[in-house]
Amino acid sequence: MPTDDHKRVETKAQSATAQLTKRATVRAMESILDEHFVVLDHGFVRVIDYMGDDAAIVQAARVSYGAGTRHVREDRALIRYLLRHRHTTPFEMCELKLHIKAPIFVARQWLRHRTASVNEYSARYSKLDREFYVPDVEHLQSVLEEQVGRRRASTSGMDDLFTVNSSVTEPLALAAQSSTNKQGRDDVLTGDEAKQALSAINWISKNAYGIYRSLLNENRRGNTKDPNHVGLARELARAALPVNYYTQFYWKIDLHNLLHFLSLRADDHAQYEIRAYAEVILDKIVANWVPATHQAFRDYTMDAVPLSAGGLSVVKRLVTKRKSVNQENSGLSKREWRELMEVLGLDP
Amino acid sequence: MPTDDHKRVETKAQSATAQLTKRATVRAMESILDEHFVVLDHGFVRVIDYMGDDAAIVQAARVSYGAGTRHVREDRALIRYLLRHRHTTPFEMCELKLHIKAPIFVARQWLRHRTASVNEYSARYSKLDREFYVPDVEHLQSVLEEQVGRRRASTSGMDDLFTVNSSVTEPLALAAQSSTNKQGRDDVLTGDEAKQALSAINWISKNAYGIYRSLLNENRRGNTKDPNHVGLARELARAALPVNYYTQFYWKIDLHNLLHFLSLRADDHAQYEIRAYAEVILDKIVANWVPATHQAFRDYTMDAVPLSAGGLSVVKRLVTKRKSVNQENSGLSKREWRELMEVLGLDP
Amino acid sequence: MPTDDHKRVETKAQSATAQLTKRATVRAMESILDEHFVVLDHGFVRVIDYMGDDAAIVQAARVSYGAGTRHVREDRALIRYLLRHRHTTPFEMCELKLHIKAPIFVARQWLRHRTASVNEYSARYSKLDREFYVPDVEHLQSVLEEQVGRRRASTSGMDDLFTVNSSVTEPLALAAQSSTNKQGRDDVLTGDEAKQALSAINWISKNAYGIYRSLLNENRRGNTKDPNHVGLARELARAALPVNYYTQFYWKIDLHNLLHFLSLRADDHAQYEIRAYAEVILDKIVANWVPATHQAFRDYTMDAVPLSAGGLSVVKRLVTKRKSVNQENSGLSKREWRELMEVLGLDP
Amino acid sequence: MPTDDHKRVETKAQSATAQLTKRATVRAMESILDEHFVVLDHGFVRVIDYMGDDAAIVQAARVSYGAGTRHVREDRALIRYLLRHRHTTPFEMCELKLHIKAPIFVARQWLRHRTASVNEYSARYSKLDREFYVPDVEHLQSVLEEQVGRRRASTSGMDDLFTVNSSVTEPLALAAQSSTNKQGRDDVLTGDEAKQALSAINWISKNAYGIYRSLLNENRRGNTKDPNHVGLARELARAALPVNYYTQFYWKIDLHNLLHFLSLRADDHAQYEIRAYAEVILDKIVANWVPATHQAFRDYTMDAVPLSAGGLSVVKRLVTKRKSVNQENSGLSKREWRELMEVLGLDP
Repeated sequence: MPTDDHKRVETKAQSATAQLTKRATVRAMESILDEHFVVLDHGFVRVIDYMGDDAAIVQAARVSYGAGTRHVREDRALIRYLLRHRHTTPFEMCELKLHIKAPIFVARQWLRHRTASVNEYSARYSKLDREFYVPDVEHLQSVLEEQVGRRRASTSGMDDLFTVNSSVTEPLALAAQSSTNKQGRDDVLTGDEAKQALSAINWISKNAYGIYRSLLNENRRGNTKDPNHVGLARELARAALPVNYYTQFYWKIDLHNLLHFLSLRADDHAQYEIRAYAEVILDKIVANWVPATHQAFRDYTMDAVPLSAGGLSVVKRLVTKRKSVNQENSGLSKREWRELMEVLGLDP
Repeated sequence: MPTDDHKRVETKAQSATAQLTKRATVRAMESILDEHFVVLDHGFVRVIDYMGDDAAIVQAARVSYGAGTRHVREDRALIRYLLRHRHTTPFEMCELKLHIKAPIFVARQWLRHRTASVNEYSARYSKLDREFYVPDVEHLQSVLEEQVGRRRASTSGMDDLFTVNSSVTEPLALAAQSSTNKQGRDDVLTGDEAKQALSAINWISKNAYGIYRSLLNENRRGNTKDPNHVGLARELARAALPVNYYTQFYWKIDLHNLLHFLSLRADDHAQYEIRAYAEVILDKIVANWVPATHQAFRDYTMDAVPLSAGGLSVVKRLVTKRKSVNQENSGLSKREWRELMEVLGLDP
Repeated sequence: MPTDDHKRVETKAQSATAQLTKRATVRAMESILDEHFVVLDHGFVRVIDYMGDDAAIVQAARVSYGAGTRHVREDRALIRYLLRHRHTTPFEMCELKLHIKAPIFVARQWLRHRTASVNEYSARYSKLDREFYVPDVEHLQSVLEEQVGRRRASTSGMDDLFTVNSSVTEPLALAAQSSTNKQGRDDVLTGDEAKQALSAINWISKNAYGIYRSLLNENRRGNTKDPNHVGLARELARAALPVNYYTQFYWKIDLHNLLHFLSLRADDHAQYEIRAYAEVILDKIVANWVPATHQAFRDYTMDAVPLSAGGLSVVKRLVTKRKSVNQENSGLSKREWRELMEVLGLDP
Repeated sequence: MPTDDHKRVETKAQSATAQLTKRATVRAMESILDEHFVVLDHGFVRVIDYMGDDAAIVQAARVSYGAGTRHVREDRALIRYLLRHRHTTPFEMCELKLHIKAPIFVARQWLRHRTASVNEYSARYSKLDREFYVPDVEHLQSVLEEQVGRRRASTSGMDDLFTVNSSVTEPLALAAQSSTNKQGRDDVLTGDEAKQALSAINWISKNAYGIYRSLLNENRRGNTKDPNHVGLARELARAALPVNYYTQFYWKIDLHNLLHFLSLRADDHAQYEIRAYAEVILDKIVANWVPATHQAFRDYTMDAVPLSAGGLSVVKRLVTKRKSVNQENSGLSKREWRELMEVLGLDP
């Protein structure tokens, strides 16, 4: 668990003793305020502040329908209606402020989303801690397995559309295909190989920090190494550090844009490392903060599927059974047909 | 067709004679550049400038997949893939600049979309022309018809969730319900009544302009009325003008955000007046500009339907027919069930 | 004073009884939460919710400077430093949610700002109240006076750059110039004329509402006028209403973007009507919410002036007095010179 | 000079042969389209596309002032007026699309700006090239010099406000302070030390790539190393690479937001590496694209200084010389006084 490293940037903004407020307040959020939800080996997510709740969404929606609306049958039903019909603006009326600690390569994916406010730890002004991400063996094996599976099946993703660099992927495909007895795959998954990979990542990360320290003219205890020298500027010394080093940032976003972020980053196609954060935010924070919205989001976004014009036409024919339908007469491409059958749980 | 009124704000930015460029150029767009697509009674849309084309989207997507991608099977397939899987950033690489003339109440809905650049005609600094929107009788009748139908069926929209102001809507419902022989509805649709409404809108609009002119101390020919007086500031005099008066603006937006705008405003639920503009943009401009994207957008957005987690489960049961499924055992609310059956073309 | 009209859209989001929270809480804000700050004749601003305080800005700035920062000499000094040097991101860490009631033409200027979240009362779904803005006589006279003055001096604004429509402005100029004894101006300011203008605005506004009501098939008491008819759709009937009619909206914005809004809309060049709102937000809300930021914003933005490269060069010469400097040898245009002398309180 | 490495992501969007267009076209831009402006050791900036020109800004401004504007005295004067008075929206009407290649740590600062569209090379899907940034010795020495100077003078920046980590900065200060004969500083600047730093950065960067390659199961020629193994996923293998490795991206932004970016990143306070890019964009691209805007931006933004309320009051007193003014009676803090005297070229 992260202990001291993050303390430095924590301040007294959260009052030690609770205060009285007339603002919308969510008891379940109060109890997790400031808690560190651990993610990966050194990362965390913690809630710094929040504004609004499920009722605030309803309240904003009511403004839009003003005098014509006296009461609402049920807040929950209205929230579901709004989300189902893409009336998204009321969800912008809630705001969340998080403190995130994550590897740089995760932060880079994260901060690609532009509809949030960010204050990130600056490696120009401050020294980075000696903390880097190394995947655990179990996870690495499942990634490798998935990767091999992907090469084999080659069903989804970009691979069909882009002819990928043969020097990189064909050997993998070969390796997979040549192993009738799945030997190739078993080989891949030996703990030894995974351990070797991890130890290599570990080695380079540690060495990089040693060099970083030298460049700053520091010894291991963080003291000056050579008093006759000035170290390199931090903004340049950090050039040596790999992207698995941890950074931290404050991240403030409204609920609508947060849900959009989660729909992309808690999705199966997201890289495991950022998904780990997204899932914590979704299940441990959003679920506590706005439970009705959380459930509606599950039903209408995360667990929903889009049906294209062509897909709808196929489903209609399947349901009425009047005409038999197959890929050839469906109007769908092979890929689209495969995707649709998968969604419907049918045999392609 | 609007003739002189908009000329004033047109300038020489579009060169009279074509020039050579190495930028991405779309022949079909060149031929409609500067053309006024008439909308409503005095409005229009015209293309001022554009950046990029279908190929520019593909080019940007390729940057993301870099060294690993040598060639793409088909640009069209990639565009469809990107849109289907919500890889939206490449679509931001195209940009469109339009000149719009629309009633103020339409402009207000329009400019609610925040991801565009806008320069609107300022009624603080300049005098508004004497041009206002009056619906045509045919459209008004169809609106009235739809309105009555809506009150009767009361199936969709907000009405179920919000108990609407009885003084306004119940009488309408009564009117509809009391007419067993549909008399009420026929009455409603008499041309006389529609004409009366139009003539009232016409009357107030004209009188408002008369007052606007007086406040500015102008006579009908646009000259000073009384040389001993200074008129009221334009920014205050315009207070008298109704929201059906025309305004104009330049509107610049990227293709991704334009498609989002169109998905909401070319939709059946959008008010007819703004839909009229959205349809022109979609069918006459986007279709010429980025034909592959236009087709994919039709298939995967405009004509697609979302299937919620619950809806998908119902469809699976319908397709396999293993278990009979109805609203009660579906897990869907009555409203959701009705919406789903409608989508599938089945009897609720 | 607004009394009942706005009650309808107010809901229980603000708890009647205060609750305990560990979030950043500002006592001065708690005491004005929900209060209606009256603006213009029927408008108001009220605080719905807020997130963060001066300390939250400091806290976010500290994240950026991380391990290298142990304590800060003074929060106030840091806030001033951040604002002075355009380190704006920490100010995004505070958020404000307001409920605004304002004339449509004010709302149009307001919502041109794109970096906020908005839920506006919808005249598509709900009936607008019979409330419209009419300037008071005193204000109107001062506007007229200013207007005449502006025409006369013709020093600032767009007038120099744009040759304005002669039919409108020349008479004004004539009126001013012909009156050697300032008669023209005195004439202009007669209460009679101002009253006439107001009564015209009043007349058209009331008549418009009468027609609006007719189109909706309502009588004065808000009941159905003719049970055999269906009224016009609200979304069309509103076409008759002038832009001085009141609308309402929820508006949520972060502090950085709020300050930017205020720097433009609390400025002398903003139209009086929106400035009236901006000043209330600045002096009654921001000043209570984040007092240190408020003071810094006054000093470094509202009451500050930019000095162009050329202007700086002139000031340097003025200060050292080594060389005499005038418009001709200054490198500034006449307009720029005049603006600079005005800023410095010197005679042009 | 970058040669082959970037070719892969270049496509045929720029037509080999020029085509005719009626759109606003800038000859000077046509001649630099596609040109690689080299930045740092392996980076570049090239123009992919542009929309609009100086005239397009004027055209958009005219829309806002509509019927009241017949002609403009001079486009150049209007552009200056707009920029001076923060009428920023017309500048959003121009758009620029660049292709950037820069070290990851530069890209991270760059993409913090949220008002642009981005497509970045994905290290999830594609292999990164063996290209990393190493500062040149001359630049390194000047950085060190500046750094020492900064410690000594300790005049500006954050250092006064934040008590920086003693273990890191005090030694530096000591080093500086102990060297009465400037020895410390001379020592610092020995080529040897700088070379050592560079060689350390070089060493770790190369080793990191060796490990990256191993993790991908590749040999030096880019072929599979061991056909019995599957390599690690690219998205994980890249964890080993330092932030000085090069990435590339397409970047599309409007002129207003570009100028804002440049005002921060072409500023002296920006890190040298990103400033190198910003200066190329400002001087080689913007200056060619919109020359009038470029000059105005220089005068009113880049070379301008803000004068706070307190600063203005001091300047007024200095100019009139009526009262003597010093830090004590100025109302300014010591820091503000020092900053002001510096700006005015006076002795503090």
